[in-house]
Amino acid sequence: MGEFELIRRHFQHALHPAGVALGNGDDCALLAPAPGMRLAVSTDMLVEGRHFLSTVPPDALGHKALAVNLSDLAAMGAEPLAFTLALSMPRVDDAWLSGFASGLLALADAHGCALVGGDTTAGPLNICITVFGQVPEHQALRRSAAQVGDDVYVSGCVGDARLALEVFRGKAQLSATDFAAVRQRLERPTPRVALGLALRGVAHAAIDLSDGLLGDLGHVLAASGVGAELGTSWIENSMATSPILKSAGAEFLSKFSLSGGDDYELAFTAPVAARDRVMLAAEHTGTTVTRIGTITATPGLRLLDAQGQALRQLPPSFDHFA
Amino acid sequence: MGEFELIRRHFQHALHPAGVALGNGDDCALLAPAPGMRLAVSTDMLVEGRHFLSTVPPDALGHKALAVNLSDLAAMGAEPLAFTLALSMPRVDDAWLSGFASGLLALADAHGCALVGGDTTAGPLNICITVFGQVPEHQALRRSAAQVGDDVYVSGCVGDARLALEVFRGKAQLSATDFAAVRQRLERPTPRVALGLALRGVAHAAIDLSDGLLGDLGHVLAASGVGAELGTSWIENSMATSPILKSAGAEFLSKFSLSGGDDYELAFTAPVAARDRVMLAAEHTGTTVTRIGTITATPGLRLLDAQGQALRQLPPSFDHFA
Repeated sequence: MGEFELIRRHFQHALHPAGVALGNGDDCALLAPAPGMRLAVSTDMLVEGRHFLSTVPPDALGHKALAVNLSDLAAMGAEPLAFTLALSMPRVDDAWLSGFASGLLALADAHGCALVGGDTTAGPLNICITVFGQVPEHQALRRSAAQVGDDVYVSGCVGDARLALEVFRGKAQLSATDFAAVRQRLERPTPRVALGLALRGVAHAAIDLSDGLLGDLGHVLAASGVGAELGTSWIENSMATSPILKSAGAEFLSKFSLSGGDDYELAFTAPVAARDRVMLAAEHTGTTVTRIGTITATPGLRLLDAQGQALRQLPPSFDHFA
Repeated sequence: MGEFELIRRHFQHALHPAGVALGNGDDCALLAPAPGMRLAVSTDMLVEGRHFLSTVPPDALGHKALAVNLSDLAAMGAEPLAFTLALSMPRVDDAWLSGFASGLLALADAHGCALVGGDTTAGPLNICITVFGQVPEHQALRRSAAQVGDDVYVSGCVGDARLALEVFRGKAQLSATDFAAVRQRLERPTPRVALGLALRGVAHAAIDLSDGLLGDLGHVLAASGVGAELGTSWIENSMATSPILKSAGAEFLSKFSLSGGDDYELAFTAPVAARDRVMLAAEHTGTTVTRIGTITATPGLRLLDAQGQALRQLPPSFDHFA
């Protein structure tokens, strides 16, 4: 099977949103954002052994490859429109491709996001997706928009994905049921697109959590020229939404929640006056949102324990070359 | 050196075209095509050992990675605006990165094309670029727009890149000077962006030549529901622009010119009434353009020898999984 037959068989996508003037099959796709909209663009590359294990089911991999990109749109408050897929793989494996494409296109359909082009080639397994969304320029949730006095929030439960990874690595143990649940969180993350859209005009700054809460929030602080104080008692509270995380033991808990990575939740800031609107946005989109701290004029990130005392040592963030 | 330091050191790009509302450093870049313009999008992935040899100088690789993407914009008649770069590499090598970035950003600067985001990660060497351009929707040079009676043209000289590859493979011999010249064509192709822009409103259909003239032109014919008759005498004539190709011997000549691949020239069709305007576009952009045939209502691609007799056997096109 050649390259063109492969594309025809597995990657035909019948979705044609209004913003796609020309889909795949030409030298370029042509996109037409709605009047007044900016085109939001993000690229993520997934490498076997680095971003996913060879044991991952292909449909979960297809899901995740697009999910991590949609998560970047969510963090900008952008509505998904289209994406390109560049896929390098050692050989043409029809069963694998079929599974990969089904997971990928199911998530694409759920978000009205059309596959408009790409590239396929022989080589080590590598998946590169570039995603396109649209957002009114002045409602984009930029990293640089956090303001002193803003509340800091995080969506969902952070740490599950890292816990699953530690089980895979043999460094943590869970019951089969609990492992299945956290594995789902690692392999099939839910991009918080609906929450991102609901936060337009409500939140100031946002970022998605791929490398861990502390590191990613640090980017917001640096871009905004501010600092933050975060409580840690919310971590205990958030165990209510993740009893599994609790079962892993307290020694893992704070490490995973604060610097676990791969969660694809949103961290964002919003003015105190918007607390009700934040909670409405959370409710309307069926997303748990927890208030975890405050933006400060003093630069840097400080963690406060239950007694309000600053913790000395912060867990490190994930680095792709560490 | 971590991921963020790597980006800061090597991939800062000071270019801020009017169409880029927000460059790199956030979850997404924000693009703003000019009013009435469509955003043209294309993705190409380059894998070591498949698309380039490990001996290629890093600055040439940086040039080529962007050039093959700009070539897709050229084939659409689109003006370059921005690109994202996803780079997977085995280790952080400052000397390699410095060379790669210099070749990449020099070509980007020459085309006013801003690096607006991307991804870097550890893994086998793999380069994925997604490029963005703008084009008025009704002037885009689509593959589906060829019309019966159109002339068929090709830019530059096709076959040099394949000849260089055959020398690398030990299957052809050239003098050191001639090899240096064809190697330049293989490793540092010139995307025909200026020609593509000059052909807006002049040409009907266009495609860039990455897999070989016959195969790529075949995509235009299929998309347009037409056929073509190509003479072969132009191949002899085109040797005037490539004495090197001639020196490789007649047995290579037709194979390389017709199905060589990796040339990144443009093949396009235009009405007979536009012959003068095509030649003006070629002259104004300093590009050689050769008329090689005619679009026919009869489907399929026929090659005619100097006596007007159809050749029976067509050389095969390049397939990434062959």
